[in-house]
Amino acid sequence: MIDTVKNRRTIRKYLQKDIPSDLLNDLLETSSRASTMGGMQLYSVVITRNAEMKEKLSPAHFNQPMVKGAPVVLTFCADFRRFSKWCEQRNAVPGYNNLMSFMNAAMDTLLVAQTFCTLAEEAGLGICYLGTTTYNPQMVIDALQLPELVFPITTVTVGYPDGIPAQVDRLPLEATVHEEYYHDYSKADIDKLYAYKESLPENEQFVKENRKETLAQVFTDVRYTKKDNEFMSDNLLKVLHQQGFM
Amino acid sequence: MIDTVKNRRTIRKYLQKDIPSDLLNDLLETSSRASTMGGMQLYSVVITRNAEMKEKLSPAHFNQPMVKGAPVVLTFCADFRRFSKWCEQRNAVPGYNNLMSFMNAAMDTLLVAQTFCTLAEEAGLGICYLGTTTYNPQMVIDALQLPELVFPITTVTVGYPDGIPAQVDRLPLEATVHEEYYHDYSKADIDKLYAYKESLPENEQFVKENRKETLAQVFTDVRYTKKDNEFMSDNLLKVLHQQGFM
Repeated sequence: MIDTVKNRRTIRKYLQKDIPSDLLNDLLETSSRASTMGGMQLYSVVITRNAEMKEKLSPAHFNQPMVKGAPVVLTFCADFRRFSKWCEQRNAVPGYNNLMSFMNAAMDTLLVAQTFCTLAEEAGLGICYLGTTTYNPQMVIDALQLPELVFPITTVTVGYPDGIPAQVDRLPLEATVHEEYYHDYSKADIDKLYAYKESLPENEQFVKENRKETLAQVFTDVRYTKKDNEFMSDNLLKVLHQQGFM
Repeated sequence: MIDTVKNRRTIRKYLQKDIPSDLLNDLLETSSRASTMGGMQLYSVVITRNAEMKEKLSPAHFNQPMVKGAPVVLTFCADFRRFSKWCEQRNAVPGYNNLMSFMNAAMDTLLVAQTFCTLAEEAGLGICYLGTTTYNPQMVIDALQLPELVFPITTVTVGYPDGIPAQVDRLPLEATVHEEYYHDYSKADIDKLYAYKESLPENEQFVKENRKETLAQVFTDVRYTKKDNEFMSDNLLKVLHQQGFM
């Protein structure tokens, strides 16, 4: 299994082959074994197989082709609704309409999502996370009819891989691991840790294509800009309020 | 591997046996293969092995015995600092001091944490997540010297299991899975979905011990109260501001 993870790639192209319901259910049921805050299981998963529903979801994900191209799209949602309803039916007053509860539910959700992905890959499937879910939460909420105390955290497209893309780079282990306490990075550390990434032909090409001086500028000026992040942060707060988490 | 996950239990008691550094590093390095937003790897992991450091961390986790009892304690942190420093050194202006960026980094962090946990269990280790990390973030920040744009998301204690506890219950799959769109829960649904959990002798015992009428009241009145959640939500916002994410 460790080899599956070592060799993994994000898969964005899928064969026109359905995922058997039994397999999908087994993977989802097994994923529910992931650690969960107080055993509360603060998540829901919406399964999209229907072409019309994929069409509805697609704009929320900036029409990335994986949404319509994958046999199955899973939207993993933080969910304090089910638990709160249970409380209300049991003469208990739920107090989960706040940011801390959102964070707890988001964590449960991501542990289940990632367990699902690891298991799916071990079973020969390929997956792709769509970070766009929290960029356009309202569109996902509308498409999937998510009520109060439910919030879409991430989306995973799943299917049998159509081809195996090259594996992308990762920073050396020492970039992300700190012994005993946080060792802040010196300028020399940063140069050393990012040297390999910057030297890759595909990344040099990426800089040229975007007419930038450095790879970092492709991130700050094109892919993940301050302006977009600030707009989306305001939007995130607004939708958190609306879904009852603030 | 699917069987490892199916049979997993949270492990809170560990043998007095160290985890070889090679194994720990292999697990951490392999975990870095988890999906990450734009390949940015927005996380850091602080490894605590030192007894004095465990002593310092312990109060943040309400002195739960796992912190001092585990050979290794891992604090998984959202980290936009390393990436922002790289941007600054490359003539690029980072715009990641906002909530959206925090969310993105928190997601990267949790995917790595959960990949680590699944791999660790497959290697015969046992793990326990400590949700206390985001309850007392400032104490963790102080103990581990986390600077701006670094935020502790979750803590995992790791070691060789000392005994195998009983497996805890999970809701039936239909509780958490929705076909095509969110199907809201009727009263009858809730009764049915929670019936098994409520019927378990250990949960009936739990209600008695806490002198409550229902299991739900143990959660709302004792374990996860509205008052605590609201206090911790305010605190979370305060510490997010302080670490530069709002």
